[in-house]
Amino acid sequence: MIHPTTRVLAAELPGHVGESVEISGWLHRRRALKSVTFLVIRDRSGLAQVVATGAGPDLPEETVLRIRGTVTANPQAPAGVELTSPTVEVLSSLAEAPPVGLFRPAVEAALPVILDGAPVTLRHPRLSALHRITAASVAGFRATLDGLDFTEIQTPKVVSSATESGANVFALDWFGRPAYLAQSPQFFKQAMVGVFERVYETGPVFRAEPHDTARHLGQYTSLDAELGFITDHREVMAVLREVAAGMVASVAERAGAAVDLLEVKLPEVPAEIPQLHFAEAMRLLGVDEPDLAPAHERWLSEWALREHGSEFLFVVGYPMRKRPFYTHPEPGRPECSNSFDLLFRGLELVTGGQRLHRHEDYLAALAARGEPVRPYEGYLRSFAHGMPPHGGFALGLERWTARLTGTDNIRRTTLFPRDLHRLTP
Amino acid sequence: MIHPTTRVLAAELPGHVGESVEISGWLHRRRALKSVTFLVIRDRSGLAQVVATGAGPDLPEETVLRIRGTVTANPQAPAGVELTSPTVEVLSSLAEAPPVGLFRPAVEAALPVILDGAPVTLRHPRLSALHRITAASVAGFRATLDGLDFTEIQTPKVVSSATESGANVFALDWFGRPAYLAQSPQFFKQAMVGVFERVYETGPVFRAEPHDTARHLGQYTSLDAELGFITDHREVMAVLREVAAGMVASVAERAGAAVDLLEVKLPEVPAEIPQLHFAEAMRLLGVDEPDLAPAHERWLSEWALREHGSEFLFVVGYPMRKRPFYTHPEPGRPECSNSFDLLFRGLELVTGGQRLHRHEDYLAALAARGEPVRPYEGYLRSFAHGMPPHGGFALGLERWTARLTGTDNIRRTTLFPRDLHRLTP
Repeated sequence: MIHPTTRVLAAELPGHVGESVEISGWLHRRRALKSVTFLVIRDRSGLAQVVATGAGPDLPEETVLRIRGTVTANPQAPAGVELTSPTVEVLSSLAEAPPVGLFRPAVEAALPVILDGAPVTLRHPRLSALHRITAASVAGFRATLDGLDFTEIQTPKVVSSATESGANVFALDWFGRPAYLAQSPQFFKQAMVGVFERVYETGPVFRAEPHDTARHLGQYTSLDAELGFITDHREVMAVLREVAAGMVASVAERAGAAVDLLEVKLPEVPAEIPQLHFAEAMRLLGVDEPDLAPAHERWLSEWALREHGSEFLFVVGYPMRKRPFYTHPEPGRPECSNSFDLLFRGLELVTGGQRLHRHEDYLAALAARGEPVRPYEGYLRSFAHGMPPHGGFALGLERWTARLTGTDNIRRTTLFPRDLHRLTP
Repeated sequence: MIHPTTRVLAAELPGHVGESVEISGWLHRRRALKSVTFLVIRDRSGLAQVVATGAGPDLPEETVLRIRGTVTANPQAPAGVELTSPTVEVLSSLAEAPPVGLFRPAVEAALPVILDGAPVTLRHPRLSALHRITAASVAGFRATLDGLDFTEIQTPKVVSSATESGANVFALDWFGRPAYLAQSPQFFKQAMVGVFERVYETGPVFRAEPHDTARHLGQYTSLDAELGFITDHREVMAVLREVAAGMVASVAERAGAAVDLLEVKLPEVPAEIPQLHFAEAMRLLGVDEPDLAPAHERWLSEWALREHGSEFLFVVGYPMRKRPFYTHPEPGRPECSNSFDLLFRGLELVTGGQRLHRHEDYLAALAARGEPVRPYEGYLRSFAHGMPPHGGFALGLERWTARLTGTDNIRRTTLFPRDLHRLTP
């Protein structure tokens, strides 16, 4: 039984006009006028205004307070109510003033200041709002896949060989043996298709990216899904479409206040997201490189918006040589793959596709790339014992929130980012 | 739009009697009798029986099949239906036979065989059932805390200093700098109380435990919660009681078939879980050590069942010197702490308590233990800027499932365990 508390949240005050109530929170802002002092209190639900006659308590912002007072209607106050005749109790005092004014409407500090002071700066409503949107997004991801009969899994983050992309792994000492941080749950989620058919995982992945850019981090949260008994990659894309729609709906439902505060324009996810074959994209772009540069992604996104009214675009059929060895080729066009990227507002957000599923195809694919079989032995076991046609995708959570909110750097959508230069706080 | 599929799941067959349908799955068991051959097909929903006249297709178990046939009522068949006049198509053949008979009712193999062959052995219904219970448990954890207005967070798994318990950390090379795998999200979740008041995380933690026991792993999944504006640890215990009840309810609702298959007796979670002060527990046990040995935990669990009819027991008031430095002391009894363990069926399952929240109390606690302040600087920042009274708990997911299902070793409730000796598959 949760013991009843007498505490009322800021957002609940309009329902208590005329009552004596207790609120708790941080002193967000103190403004002393000639005859009254306003105390704005911040709690997890929002802000509450408290009015004390005279000078009121002289406390620095961020002091933690418990306040008893009378809820009084005042059309001028935020949400139409304020607390009057307050009795103020200090729960925690400050040892230091915050590095940024948390009460200011905008975050007036450079990124390093924000990141160095994260335990405090994240309290700024505009910064915490980003992470409420992240929490709502991941809830939407899970709810959508739960509804489609997926099973959640947890897989190892420490692996014995640096497979997958080969480079950019973090090395580790595991009880005296060399080991590596997992770059993705790819091999594990495929194996688990053999057990549950449909699986997802939401967890950290690690890339020793030597790039100091606004979109690369050493650790990020990967939202991974994989499903079996598909015909080809198009069923994976159909599931991803549902997931994107579910994530947007969850943000609207669970993080509405954050969306409003940040003035985020949530996208429409079309019932059928438009798609373009890679070869056709090359033709439209007038290039013949085997890769999409960031400028190409932006151009294609604009094209999709103009031609199809969609902020999302699937590019399918990437060249096999640009995709990992487990990628399934396009039937009748073996230089192309049954894979896709999902572009959203000018940026690649999701990569996915159909995988090989026959043991002999894996052996042939590794041989064709001149790769030894031995490091993949554990992985290949699933396929030796019968695996259905399957595919999946991976979505970077911090990138998603950044793109959704128009945030320029994923360090702002990561609680405590880890990169080339940053290991603290 | 999910493209409609013609596939029918095994569990849906009773609703299609008389129809021609298509099922897909693994050949779980093939039994050829004189005039008919039975093929049992396993998919994510369960088992379906297919009857072919004559010898039927001669395929090894685990071959992946798609089968079209007529759904025919037969009171002798499982679930009262079977597929007759089948047309069988092979989706994937086998390169190797499974290391264990997946169709046998019991898993007839030693633990190392099961773990070495995990990509295949986990397909055994009794083994996969354990992981369905895990998935349902973690869903219940999140749903309960979502309902109590908690916000989900993702925190770094790589940290710059080996704090918390000091020993048993995995060392890492982070772009040429020494770093460590996080042993818990403790410091981060406390900091986030300053932002969201109530937070949870479900993610991997890493302990370089040199113990080769049935309850220790190098990586496990920690279900962490932390909440602010509490009076003391009893509000944390009240939330934990709701969480335990929510997890049990979710297992009943979302993993009912797994519960039935494993004949799991789900516990009743009492409205008020009985509690015992550590000093009183020592008195009952007739010992005066400052620690509970495993035998003590078992005895106390039996006592709670006998005296209170409860499979859960809170032990509160552990000696301060046995708890981490951030633990809040018991008012008026400073050698005891406002902390607790939750015992379940003879084993400690959860540790939690109230934390210090005042900056000066942290400085004093570190000084009293002779610990330097510098490695904790990032952590202490939250407290320098005003933190409410708060507390929380951590629950080991794999231990929970093991205890709930009466499984003897947490390696069986971990998909791909990592320990002193094991880094694969």
